[in-house]
Amino acid sequence: MKNVNASIITIGDELLIGQTIDTNSAWIGQELNKIGVWLKRRVAVGDVWDDIWNALDAESKESDIIIITGGLGPTADDITKPLLCKYFGGKLVVNEEVLAHVKYLFDKVFRRPGPMLESNLKQAEVPDVCTVLHNSRGTAPGMWFEAPSKSPPKGETSEDSLNKKIFVSLPGVPHEMKGLMINEVLPRIEKAFDLPFIIHRTAFTMGTGESMIAEKIKDFEASLPNHIRLAYLPGYGMVKLRLTAKGADKEKMEKELDERFSVLKELVNEWLVSDEDENLAMVVQKILKAKNKTIGTAESCTGGYIAHLITSNAGSSVGFKGSVISYANDVKERVLGVTDKTLRTVGAVSEETVRQMVKGAIQKLQVDFAVATSGIMGPDGGTEEKPVGTVWVAVGNKEKIETVKLSYRFDRERNIEMTSHTALNLLRKFILANT
Amino acid sequence: MKNVNASIITIGDELLIGQTIDTNSAWIGQELNKIGVWLKRRVAVGDVWDDIWNALDAESKESDIIIITGGLGPTADDITKPLLCKYFGGKLVVNEEVLAHVKYLFDKVFRRPGPMLESNLKQAEVPDVCTVLHNSRGTAPGMWFEAPSKSPPKGETSEDSLNKKIFVSLPGVPHEMKGLMINEVLPRIEKAFDLPFIIHRTAFTMGTGESMIAEKIKDFEASLPNHIRLAYLPGYGMVKLRLTAKGADKEKMEKELDERFSVLKELVNEWLVSDEDENLAMVVQKILKAKNKTIGTAESCTGGYIAHLITSNAGSSVGFKGSVISYANDVKERVLGVTDKTLRTVGAVSEETVRQMVKGAIQKLQVDFAVATSGIMGPDGGTEEKPVGTVWVAVGNKEKIETVKLSYRFDRERNIEMTSHTALNLLRKFILANT
Repeated sequence: MKNVNASIITIGDELLIGQTIDTNSAWIGQELNKIGVWLKRRVAVGDVWDDIWNALDAESKESDIIIITGGLGPTADDITKPLLCKYFGGKLVVNEEVLAHVKYLFDKVFRRPGPMLESNLKQAEVPDVCTVLHNSRGTAPGMWFEAPSKSPPKGETSEDSLNKKIFVSLPGVPHEMKGLMINEVLPRIEKAFDLPFIIHRTAFTMGTGESMIAEKIKDFEASLPNHIRLAYLPGYGMVKLRLTAKGADKEKMEKELDERFSVLKELVNEWLVSDEDENLAMVVQKILKAKNKTIGTAESCTGGYIAHLITSNAGSSVGFKGSVISYANDVKERVLGVTDKTLRTVGAVSEETVRQMVKGAIQKLQVDFAVATSGIMGPDGGTEEKPVGTVWVAVGNKEKIETVKLSYRFDRERNIEMTSHTALNLLRKFILANT
Repeated sequence: MKNVNASIITIGDELLIGQTIDTNSAWIGQELNKIGVWLKRRVAVGDVWDDIWNALDAESKESDIIIITGGLGPTADDITKPLLCKYFGGKLVVNEEVLAHVKYLFDKVFRRPGPMLESNLKQAEVPDVCTVLHNSRGTAPGMWFEAPSKSPPKGETSEDSLNKKIFVSLPGVPHEMKGLMINEVLPRIEKAFDLPFIIHRTAFTMGTGESMIAEKIKDFEASLPNHIRLAYLPGYGMVKLRLTAKGADKEKMEKELDERFSVLKELVNEWLVSDEDENLAMVVQKILKAKNKTIGTAESCTGGYIAHLITSNAGSSVGFKGSVISYANDVKERVLGVTDKTLRTVGAVSEETVRQMVKGAIQKLQVDFAVATSGIMGPDGGTEEKPVGTVWVAVGNKEKIETVKLSYRFDRERNIEMTSHTALNLLRKFILANT
């Protein structure tokens, strides 16, 4: 069993000029990791012939598997397919199955009127030196190329050294790429290589920083054997600690990893939110399900983002009933019952306002618990007394309401993210303490 | 004037195992582009000494500017600083200004009790061969290295050829990186190089696909001169068409680009949402401001995401008053006034329900226009009659309500994104047609 490395090459000017954020690579990295392939490098290049060609050369020296995404669309700036064809010494031929699929999609699924465009028909052309991978979700097929290493180590033949190189080309549209990876690429990679087992354990913490945790688990970290790695994965107001073990004996590895993980969890217990790799809203959802309770949100400055975090998870309707986004003051009054006097005397960004918002939400949405936010997210709207980043959060039930004042100094986006995650964590703690 | 290229190297296992999505590179690419630097390559490597070293070697052959992000945190898996120190032949020394800043942050801003940790004090150590860049937002300083090219072209001295290489190391935390780029790095790059002007014009379209647009503007595209590039930038339900010109004579370029852009806009007029590079919610916000009108949302399946899209923009309080997220049916009834009969007979995912939701939102939120969504986002909850991806959207004012049924076949995340953007575009069109 050898270590199998992979590189991702993403193609497209839109990635380099920053119009598109590359979410594909992160997802591919996760999936490769799960089956025991280590993603060694990720490279993005523009729609430039030489740059793509050089990237293929360079990455095939580094890795066993090269996954290429993007550059397969129907528009003129895509040169990937002809390039791959030349790179592997083939020629473009029409693939009848792909052609039939493209026609089917246009006739039955997209229901586009009129004849198909030439650029769409061209998507059925593939290099004759690849295995075509069926893209059930779109018109551009995936392509799988196998090439023996050009320079096997001295004294070995190309076959003995197993220095086979795999190149896979996938469309850049995320849901098409994901379908192809799951249905076609990952199973073929598992078949092509003798892969080690990879196991992860993740401790999800909130309420302190990386350096504080690092200090606390210093000795634990130093004591880890070589085949177990620890990674710090910071997020908005949170740090995830991931232990990863790699090896051939799955059972032994799992036992060892579980023992280490117990020690780690004990060390960070005061900040521990969950011992699974999940998002905060999912943790709250599980608590609500277990305790058969419901929640709602009353959001001003977070503008619906807490509700969005919750409803992004499948099955969120079990504990989540709804929200009132009261951006304007008259909505705070009319829908949530915040008093005119409170708004006039202490203002919308105040402890009293978020208290009344929680009360109103519990009553209006008929929920067991509610969380409310009101603050100044910036860049404008700050005053000397209440600068940008000032936020009041309240959590409560029918009997009790608790409030916290937060002060952030970030940009608007981050202020919204931090407020939402912090508010959701306060709600989680309140539910646990009051049920 | 020569073309100035840049590479970004991001360091960190968290990028490769896919725990973190790389939003930094997109932002850096945008900012470099604005000042006329072409981002040629983006590379991500793990926390591995040789991989980082090799990436520095490889990228310095490709680009004039190498921007390195990540790998500077206080935890043990960070090896970037010692590596850079060795790479440029320096030694680590304590920088008194950085030390004072770190102490200030811990005492006055983070307000951490007790003495500072050794790992934090270490952040004040920098290579003695770099210019230290002040990080006002965090403890890890930026570092600027200048290295003459190792091999100037024949017949030229290193100075004549201007083959200077710039290496910049920045922390990976986005808001710290951004502050350093804006305040320190970009101004220094503009000073260090004689940069061309770059001008963009963007046509923002919705309602058709890339291939349809490509067919329509085929001749236009073929007629473009070499110094003007066209890029297709697809998003959720939208395609942005970006024209980019690069050159030395700004005035002439602008005139030429504006002429071309007028032709392009005319060609795609039926799908044109805006002739600026902005988001859809911003377009709606401008319309509301110009017409002095207000909106609200009544969201079931989008769970607050439309409200979030709107409130992500600064100044959204001008036209946006609020939302009712009615995830549970009893919230649809009690807060929005959807009738029990409707829910019992045709169900929550129905034309009649979204009609009543719009009516209820207009009345409850006291707004001029409202949009409502109700659908099945998946992965569960579909039936034969209403499969996953079935969505009803309604938009209206006091006089009139229009409805649309959508059918998607994506995953939950994409269904929410597509529904939200489509609903917001329907609202935009309705407002324009009815004011």
